[in-house]
Amino acid sequence: MVSMSEPLFTAIDHVGIAVEDLDASIAFYETAFGMRMTHRETNTEQGVEEAMMEVGESAIQLLAPLSPDTTIGKFLATKGPGIQQMAYRVTDIDDVCAKLREAGVRLLYDEPRIGTAGSRVNFVHPKSAGGVLVELVEPASSH
Amino acid sequence: MVSMSEPLFTAIDHVGIAVEDLDASIAFYETAFGMRMTHRETNTEQGVEEAMMEVGESAIQLLAPLSPDTTIGKFLATKGPGIQQMAYRVTDIDDVCAKLREAGVRLLYDEPRIGTAGSRVNFVHPKSAGGVLVELVEPASSH
Repeated sequence: MVSMSEPLFTAIDHVGIAVEDLDASIAFYETAFGMRMTHRETNTEQGVEEAMMEVGESAIQLLAPLSPDTTIGKFLATKGPGIQQMAYRVTDIDDVCAKLREAGVRLLYDEPRIGTAGSRVNFVHPKSAGGVLVELVEPASSH
Repeated sequence: MVSMSEPLFTAIDHVGIAVEDLDASIAFYETAFGMRMTHRETNTEQGVEEAMMEVGESAIQLLAPLSPDTTIGKFLATKGPGIQQMAYRVTDIDDVCAKLREAGVRLLYDEPRIGTAGSRVNFVHPKSAGGVLVELVEPASSH
């Protein structure tokens, strides 16, 4: 049971940024911005290669498409490189999804799916969140 | 003297989101997303009315334009509501700006200016940061 005063989102888990060239972007964030890469993976299901760059309790998630007909490929084609999504960390994603649905917020999946590094994730539809693609992330360590 | 291993950016200070209606957006972030508003101000110089919504050590900054011919007014007209900027917290903005210039990063101002809540701020040009408008924030408490 979560108390009324406990926040729904405990932190900004990461901010997703669409990039053309993952290696060049990692090099820029490491060299110019002084960030450390904490994780890198290729997700063939989502058609994306990604890297997590550490900032305090949060991360910048660099996202490069595996092909043009993927979510990130289409984003780059229409909007160009830039911020693509906002991900909040949650402790219990099932509880948070239930509370959001009660508040009338539209979620993308009926049940959470597996995201980066074994996390459980769901998304709020941009039309339900003022044009922002919002991801909810329950890190692997909390389940 | 900052050691080589200390990160340049200590946290995501805030993520700026352009909105049409500030009161409606604050109500949504409070009610649906369960966030607490920690600050609200009108900056006539920048033509923006803004609210800070707390998330862990970071915040979501809701930005509504005072008129169409402002930075946020033009952003809304061309891109619609959504994520507009990424702000990193720094301890010593003069030191960080010098290091970024050394790395070949283009900054918007020669000297930091006064930002939200008495902070000292500067911006990295989006062309220098993969299409992302990056703000650097030294909070008022650290100077």
